[in-house]
Amino acid sequence: MTYLVHFLSYRRPAAILAATGIGFLLLFLARPAIAHAAGPDEETAFVFNTFAFLVWGALVMWMCAGFTMLESGSVRTKNAAMICLKNIGLYSIAGLAFFIIGYNLMYGDSLGGIIGTPGFMYGSTAAEVALVEAEGAVAEGAVAAVVGEEGAGYATMSDWFFQMVFVATTASIVSGALAERVKMWSFFLFILVLTAVIYPVVGAWTWADGGWLNELGFSDFAGSTIVHSTGGWAALAGILVVGPRLGKFRRNGTVRLTPPSNILVVTLGVFILWLGWFGFNGGSQLALSSALDAVAMSIVLVNTNLGAAAGVMAALIVSRPILGRIDLFAGLNGAIAGLVSITAAPDIVDHHWAVVIGAVGGVLCVGGLKFMEMVKLDDVVGAVPAHMFAGVWGTVAVCIAGGATFHVQLIGVLSIGAFVFLVSYGLWQLLDKTLGARVSTSVERLGQDAGELGMESYPEFVLMPEVEDDD
Amino acid sequence: MTYLVHFLSYRRPAAILAATGIGFLLLFLARPAIAHAAGPDEETAFVFNTFAFLVWGALVMWMCAGFTMLESGSVRTKNAAMICLKNIGLYSIAGLAFFIIGYNLMYGDSLGGIIGTPGFMYGSTAAEVALVEAEGAVAEGAVAAVVGEEGAGYATMSDWFFQMVFVATTASIVSGALAERVKMWSFFLFILVLTAVIYPVVGAWTWADGGWLNELGFSDFAGSTIVHSTGGWAALAGILVVGPRLGKFRRNGTVRLTPPSNILVVTLGVFILWLGWFGFNGGSQLALSSALDAVAMSIVLVNTNLGAAAGVMAALIVSRPILGRIDLFAGLNGAIAGLVSITAAPDIVDHHWAVVIGAVGGVLCVGGLKFMEMVKLDDVVGAVPAHMFAGVWGTVAVCIAGGATFHVQLIGVLSIGAFVFLVSYGLWQLLDKTLGARVSTSVERLGQDAGELGMESYPEFVLMPEVEDDD
Amino acid sequence: MTYLVHFLSYRRPAAILAATGIGFLLLFLARPAIAHAAGPDEETAFVFNTFAFLVWGALVMWMCAGFTMLESGSVRTKNAAMICLKNIGLYSIAGLAFFIIGYNLMYGDSLGGIIGTPGFMYGSTAAEVALVEAEGAVAEGAVAAVVGEEGAGYATMSDWFFQMVFVATTASIVSGALAERVKMWSFFLFILVLTAVIYPVVGAWTWADGGWLNELGFSDFAGSTIVHSTGGWAALAGILVVGPRLGKFRRNGTVRLTPPSNILVVTLGVFILWLGWFGFNGGSQLALSSALDAVAMSIVLVNTNLGAAAGVMAALIVSRPILGRIDLFAGLNGAIAGLVSITAAPDIVDHHWAVVIGAVGGVLCVGGLKFMEMVKLDDVVGAVPAHMFAGVWGTVAVCIAGGATFHVQLIGVLSIGAFVFLVSYGLWQLLDKTLGARVSTSVERLGQDAGELGMESYPEFVLMPEVEDDD
Repeated sequence: MTYLVHFLSYRRPAAILAATGIGFLLLFLARPAIAHAAGPDEETAFVFNTFAFLVWGALVMWMCAGFTMLESGSVRTKNAAMICLKNIGLYSIAGLAFFIIGYNLMYGDSLGGIIGTPGFMYGSTAAEVALVEAEGAVAEGAVAAVVGEEGAGYATMSDWFFQMVFVATTASIVSGALAERVKMWSFFLFILVLTAVIYPVVGAWTWADGGWLNELGFSDFAGSTIVHSTGGWAALAGILVVGPRLGKFRRNGTVRLTPPSNILVVTLGVFILWLGWFGFNGGSQLALSSALDAVAMSIVLVNTNLGAAAGVMAALIVSRPILGRIDLFAGLNGAIAGLVSITAAPDIVDHHWAVVIGAVGGVLCVGGLKFMEMVKLDDVVGAVPAHMFAGVWGTVAVCIAGGATFHVQLIGVLSIGAFVFLVSYGLWQLLDKTLGARVSTSVERLGQDAGELGMESYPEFVLMPEVEDDD
Repeated sequence: MTYLVHFLSYRRPAAILAATGIGFLLLFLARPAIAHAAGPDEETAFVFNTFAFLVWGALVMWMCAGFTMLESGSVRTKNAAMICLKNIGLYSIAGLAFFIIGYNLMYGDSLGGIIGTPGFMYGSTAAEVALVEAEGAVAEGAVAAVVGEEGAGYATMSDWFFQMVFVATTASIVSGALAERVKMWSFFLFILVLTAVIYPVVGAWTWADGGWLNELGFSDFAGSTIVHSTGGWAALAGILVVGPRLGKFRRNGTVRLTPPSNILVVTLGVFILWLGWFGFNGGSQLALSSALDAVAMSIVLVNTNLGAAAGVMAALIVSRPILGRIDLFAGLNGAIAGLVSITAAPDIVDHHWAVVIGAVGGVLCVGGLKFMEMVKLDDVVGAVPAHMFAGVWGTVAVCIAGGATFHVQLIGVLSIGAFVFLVSYGLWQLLDKTLGARVSTSVERLGQDAGELGMESYPEFVLMPEVEDDD
Repeated sequence: MTYLVHFLSYRRPAAILAATGIGFLLLFLARPAIAHAAGPDEETAFVFNTFAFLVWGALVMWMCAGFTMLESGSVRTKNAAMICLKNIGLYSIAGLAFFIIGYNLMYGDSLGGIIGTPGFMYGSTAAEVALVEAEGAVAEGAVAAVVGEEGAGYATMSDWFFQMVFVATTASIVSGALAERVKMWSFFLFILVLTAVIYPVVGAWTWADGGWLNELGFSDFAGSTIVHSTGGWAALAGILVVGPRLGKFRRNGTVRLTPPSNILVVTLGVFILWLGWFGFNGGSQLALSSALDAVAMSIVLVNTNLGAAAGVMAALIVSRPILGRIDLFAGLNGAIAGLVSITAAPDIVDHHWAVVIGAVGGVLCVGGLKFMEMVKLDDVVGAVPAHMFAGVWGTVAVCIAGGATFHVQLIGVLSIGAFVFLVSYGLWQLLDKTLGARVSTSVERLGQDAGELGMESYPEFVLMPEVEDDD
């Protein structure tokens, strides 16, 4: 050491060299620390966030297939093709309406916390496309430009994609509840307004920056209320205006059983929904750029699965006392109800609470199926119990994990419920007074497939003659 | 400051220490800048690219299930099991043929821009496996080796996987068009040649480095022409050689309606295809290692969805004037046509153009369904209108976004069409002259399920007796 | 240079500045090298590993839908709804049982290599949730905490999710084999023990740190034996105790054909399983944080696909000599058998060996279908040949790639087989002596749907009257 000091004292250039050498050494030593301590760089984070939106969003789109199967297997055969048409139609309308106007109404600069600034055809300017085209020419600059331009840490259109598939989910809920009697064109017009205006307004209150419920602290992670109850309230309004199917509630007070016409297809639909829900809830973490996001997303998927599993078992168990038998259809709806229930807070509840929340959702759903029959509301697939009853429960259950205060959750549930129900009710009334909301009695008896579409779902199969009931 | 200068002047070792300290400080200050400015490092990029290929490739494989459902629900019940067999068989044959010879013919070193250098069993050497095995022993070196070895920035076999599932898509298109009358073994032999030679040659012209159409500037992002028209032309050749189903075109000039036998299954198939198409087009970005790639992939998914949605609505709307009724089957084919149309340029067209391109595709498809009937070409599932007509349109529509010049696109469309059609036509003729391309009249009347397979699709269901027609 | 030396000799503060400048220069030069040589930082790696578990795990969950479709389409119509109920029930039970006790028995600190330390409700403490909640407040610290806490390089619950869906696969195998006659409650109780205890013990031997077979060097990448043979042995024990379906084996020695009642649904199921298997095998790489992991995962997916394709073609080809006809059901089972066979070593076998291994699996499966009939064991869907015969073969075939020694693989196969079979056999006997394992003759004749559930799978379709056989 003494020698080193002397060496450095008299050999200043050497001292510089030595300092440089030490610098190199430091650099070398620091290398792993630098790279490993910093976490994903801005661009890596951007890619993670974007890819998560796209992958999970694709699974949410898949839920539309799930609803289609659930519904087309649940209705009587004579209306199954119409349900297929309504579902592929509603997904198409929802996607176009949200593009043309809905997204801006939801996420445009908030006007007083009530609605986003209207705008036409979101993202349709060529700016972002130009950025992509620029890739070849000036990659370095373009990278900075795109990350800057896209600001939020993910590709703008990946978020748009994810939001768009959510709208479709809301719309899907309505078609099942009103199956077998609502007119095709009236239904499509309702869906157009629902996805272009009603749902976006609810979203503008809750998920948009500056929304009044958002400011109040209303908490609904992936949309127990915002997506599912909204669909449920819209469906309930339709049920009231359109009325029950012919013969569903007999003059003598008994209820006609209308079991699913194809239980395999219903079961497939529920499995599709269950899978899609991993995208629905997992993607709602809205980010995957940090270890915390990854941990949260994992917790979300586990809780989602536990909630659904508990919903199934609880619904099966209570179906015997409530419905008189171990009921597969109730069990399948229990999965949906469990999923809806856990959707409001899968990121923050302990796993055992996820089980409880899902189980309560399943019980509420089976009770709700019975209740709807008692009050003579004809909901073909049980959409209101599974999506609205369970959705309200799930939104309130956020309080269990301390994720929100009870009265704010209640304000959210009630204000959204009132808004969606009243606007939907008015709209259904308007449609009923103009186009007519309901098919003619003869079309309903014949079935919408033959009566409205001029086709049959299974034209080569011999079907049981339908027994005319005392309706 | 003066004190500092004196301190440093007389205390050289201390000066070294101070320099070292400043170095540390610089290192600390520079830390976030270093890590955050650089973008994904080479290995992170490698993982992103590879994982995108695998995830999207898995969704493309899923499209085979979509084709299987679409086709098996579209044919008459008596031929549905045969369609299932043909589809699982063609996917297996495509995968094996592309492995044994196809991939090398497509992507091997280009021989004059016409074909890749033939090779046997792509990637079957133990080299890459050895690299993986080396992981435990000499991780550091192996990482460098694997990234270097794999050169392109992704795992070689992830790209292979993605390319392989594309071949299967081309093959799937053929089975639907020729359903209900083409012989199983002849069909399988055709698929073998299609996936081992015909499609790889088209790919060698267009997507391979040095391919003559590639050099010319032909642009077809995910394969409107390269995949879908290729399948369509091969199907058209088969339709001409094999002829229409018995009784499809009556002597009196009318056309016998052959509606889908299971519309739920057809609808499910279309939803599967729609989902899979996110992988088909999204994965065709071929990279996910930068913000630009992520932005592009997002735009691709949004445009894909908009094109499909517009295709559905346009097809439904024009189905009434063209086909005489709101036709679900036309609407479902409209989704496919919209998807095929947008496939050539989803990365560069503005979103509103995606809507237009998809809508035109949907209209062309419905018109095409009518046209095929008028010229007495029997395409059971509408594969030629949906994949070839819409594919040609989509390839030309690349010019809208300035992504290519019209005459080059035309050269591509025509040369690929001529090549695929002529080779396919010759091959179908050869099969017809040797094995026979078509089942006997008695097997066709009985159905291929009972006649060729000795089984039934739904053995426990009572079916309508088929009405013998004036054929 | 001389000037530089003099400048530095007399201007010590300047020397410091110069050193600093050189330091900056070095830093600048080193920048890309640092960021690009280092590979993914710890947090990026964490996100990659976690996301891979979640995405692939979601696909494995999807396999339950595949089993449900395969089984509900394979059984006679009168038992299809019951199979749907059993499958959604078993998935729910498996998820809850694995949460409450199974995971800890499998992966808790090993007790003598035999079993994990029992624990109640894995991961249900609020610790990880608190970490997620901390995100807003102290992000920097929380990141370090979460990565440290989660230690293994991935989110704890992402691994849990992936492990949980595996348990369900094992359980799914049993339901198909015992379809059409096993009592619902007895079946559910068996599944509860299988997923809470039997499978976790097998996992504790093999995949857990310190497990005795693990220590011995037993190699089974994604579970040819651990998952699939386990399911197969449990099914075989049930087949022996419950006995064949009424009339399956006639007094005159002939076997009654019981073809699938809905072959489209069976085919769909197989495609679902094939897709899900990409997650099953791909996710079993258990990491995606390096180029080597990405390469390995790609090889795994390619080999998985090749094995399945070869299984289909081999099964179709040998079905004619062995079963007397080209048999679609055999071909579909060949896909499963090919997949099961390649599951033990998809990461290390050459691609052409994957083809061979899958093909042998397909042949073994078809031979096994015949063998089971000859020894009068009634396995409704061919679960034992496809999962157990092929699983044993695949586990032994690991030796081809030098991934294990033959005698260790044999010890693993035999010890796991003996354990699972004996415990399952005892449990089925216990259930038979108490609740009864089998439905009454009248319920079996009527079908479990009407007899046990009080519903029908397809209530509106006219079915063929069942011919009473000489049983």
